[in-house]
Amino acid sequence: MGISYKQAVSEIIEAGQWLDSKGFCPATAGNYSIRLGADDMAVTVSGVHKGYLTAEQIMRTDFSGKPMENKKSSAETLLHCGLYKLLPQMGAVLHTHSVPCTVLTREIKADHIILEGYELLKIFPGIQTHDVKIRIPIFENSQDMVSLQAQVDAVFKKYPQTPAYLLRGHGLYAWAEDMTKTRHVVEALEFLLSCELETLKLRRT
Amino acid sequence: MGISYKQAVSEIIEAGQWLDSKGFCPATAGNYSIRLGADDMAVTVSGVHKGYLTAEQIMRTDFSGKPMENKKSSAETLLHCGLYKLLPQMGAVLHTHSVPCTVLTREIKADHIILEGYELLKIFPGIQTHDVKIRIPIFENSQDMVSLQAQVDAVFKKYPQTPAYLLRGHGLYAWAEDMTKTRHVVEALEFLLSCELETLKLRRT
Amino acid sequence: MGISYKQAVSEIIEAGQWLDSKGFCPATAGNYSIRLGADDMAVTVSGVHKGYLTAEQIMRTDFSGKPMENKKSSAETLLHCGLYKLLPQMGAVLHTHSVPCTVLTREIKADHIILEGYELLKIFPGIQTHDVKIRIPIFENSQDMVSLQAQVDAVFKKYPQTPAYLLRGHGLYAWAEDMTKTRHVVEALEFLLSCELETLKLRRT
Amino acid sequence: MGISYKQAVSEIIEAGQWLDSKGFCPATAGNYSIRLGADDMAVTVSGVHKGYLTAEQIMRTDFSGKPMENKKSSAETLLHCGLYKLLPQMGAVLHTHSVPCTVLTREIKADHIILEGYELLKIFPGIQTHDVKIRIPIFENSQDMVSLQAQVDAVFKKYPQTPAYLLRGHGLYAWAEDMTKTRHVVEALEFLLSCELETLKLRRT
Repeated sequence: MGISYKQAVSEIIEAGQWLDSKGFCPATAGNYSIRLGADDMAVTVSGVHKGYLTAEQIMRTDFSGKPMENKKSSAETLLHCGLYKLLPQMGAVLHTHSVPCTVLTREIKADHIILEGYELLKIFPGIQTHDVKIRIPIFENSQDMVSLQAQVDAVFKKYPQTPAYLLRGHGLYAWAEDMTKTRHVVEALEFLLSCELETLKLRRT
Repeated sequence: MGISYKQAVSEIIEAGQWLDSKGFCPATAGNYSIRLGADDMAVTVSGVHKGYLTAEQIMRTDFSGKPMENKKSSAETLLHCGLYKLLPQMGAVLHTHSVPCTVLTREIKADHIILEGYELLKIFPGIQTHDVKIRIPIFENSQDMVSLQAQVDAVFKKYPQTPAYLLRGHGLYAWAEDMTKTRHVVEALEFLLSCELETLKLRRT
Repeated sequence: MGISYKQAVSEIIEAGQWLDSKGFCPATAGNYSIRLGADDMAVTVSGVHKGYLTAEQIMRTDFSGKPMENKKSSAETLLHCGLYKLLPQMGAVLHTHSVPCTVLTREIKADHIILEGYELLKIFPGIQTHDVKIRIPIFENSQDMVSLQAQVDAVFKKYPQTPAYLLRGHGLYAWAEDMTKTRHVVEALEFLLSCELETLKLRRT
Repeated sequence: MGISYKQAVSEIIEAGQWLDSKGFCPATAGNYSIRLGADDMAVTVSGVHKGYLTAEQIMRTDFSGKPMENKKSSAETLLHCGLYKLLPQMGAVLHTHSVPCTVLTREIKADHIILEGYELLKIFPGIQTHDVKIRIPIFENSQDMVSLQAQVDAVFKKYPQTPAYLLRGHGLYAWAEDMTKTRHVVEALEFLLSCELETLKLRRT
């Protein structure tokens, strides 16, 4: 990839400040990472507020989730590992919490949501028109990351173009080649999920 | 017009920061321009985030959309051209995306929305009272800018006082004599469309 | 009173920045004033954005609304005059526009709204408990300020404790002894009217 | 505890600025405290805006609410005292007002709300999974702090793990070992109560 650990730390800290300004990392929720090489990443540690990150609150792990320094990694580090292993071209992962994501995934009982007809869908790789259906899977929330990642792997086998996924009552996982593009994916999806929630309010009458 | 390219760039950058603070330019959505003369404008390039614009991300094109320098213009540049050709007195165009615009234009099936009885309608040129009906056309979203502009042209023939238009599931196009006034039009319309969405929530029971 | 024109200008500019940060002065909406003496005030001029006020955009008028310098006063200056004449102890007036105020006053057909049972009602003069009913009059919007002020005068005769009023589809007028307290009244009322709008959404089913 | 009065003042001022940025301290609402020792705390004084606190607007009282300096304490100081006496390990208390808290507690007639199935519930002490029910009591609002605290004491006897409580039509009381953790509890609960309000809007059809 060619991004230095120092640069990765700086981009993660800035992403946290930005996500906090949007209300997407309440309390100690969320975790963020950037790929450093073929088998390592910089990732936020467990249990800290992501809006006020310091360099000390970011650590290096390999893609089995094993810490490469003496800090406590989050259990969800394994989901970041799983994504980097599935998607070798991806350089950054953001996991965020928002009110619309949380409410929508609790109200919609299906295992996915279809986003359709929005101009903003053109943000996704290879999409040139609004006249398209994008499938975002929703997984049942779990504290068992191994089993959760197995479900993610299975969905990617069936839908390799999946651009992001949701955990029910929990939040969003999004990724792209680098942090800038990953921020765009988060911003677009949170916008679209807000649209979906507003629409559900209008239609459930 | 008399505005220099350098001044236009500065006003476009500042407009982008302001629109981003409102949530009106998610990901790489939106594009903004300022008329420079009888047949040229400064306009944002394709595919960048409009909240963090640099001078490099703004370019000069003529009103056929032809780049006057070696940068990639957005497909929607043609809609800016169309407006400047239709409205010789107009000096700036802002195209924004918001959750209320997006949701309302998907829920309302008509080809326009009527705004009526709001004090804030007095922001529009020539309007001295709230006791008025303002018609905002809604066009079906399209990736074919030539056909879209033809529809815009047709509506202006019938309703020459049209102060802004909406693209369904996409966003708002607004304009005025200069960037300051165009910002006022965007701010007023987004406020009024938020009012309309809240009202629809109350009435759809 | 004792407040200098210079101090009044500074407090009005700061109030505008604060109200803009809340979304309460879209486009050129709203106007603000501070009493200077027994028959004069500092007040915002007509047609400018209240979030970016300069000292040049504030002027002095007497309480008949007559400009005491060569600037264009807003038509609504007369409503500020009316309030200062009715309420000799009042030192500042803020007129704001918000989405909840606008939507609520269009949906509620009555000539007033009752706020009841909220802890925050204790912000109003003389109120020591939440267990109280506060009546906020709603006037039909009008471009005839003389007739509008006559209605305001009539309501004050009947309800001298009125702490603020609403104009339908338009906005809020609030006042207190000084600008700091007037900002508190605006903030409390906008909070409570947001609560009322959310409640109406829940109850209209 | 070991926190100095000076440090407590600084943390309270910063908490106020943060809560104001979220809209959780309209007008003069709310009050905040930090435990200094076995029988004293730093607490905000009565009647000031909590978003712009100065050191002069914070005072020291003992846990009977008796001022240890010549400033006017808020009536609700007694509820802070009550919590510190009940929960010797707790180091900070934040009492906030938000639109979702206010609306929800007025609409839900029960004496508690159950939060269930949210990932964010893991913010509470000892909670390792989203698959849990957290009970937040709702007390009827009252101006009689002694009687109110007696009810709080009674609920803690029955539910000693209570992590926060609500006052109907009034606001939230939250606490933790220190101010940082208390801010996390407030942020998590306000997020979850916003989710509950959005859900109620969807379900009341």
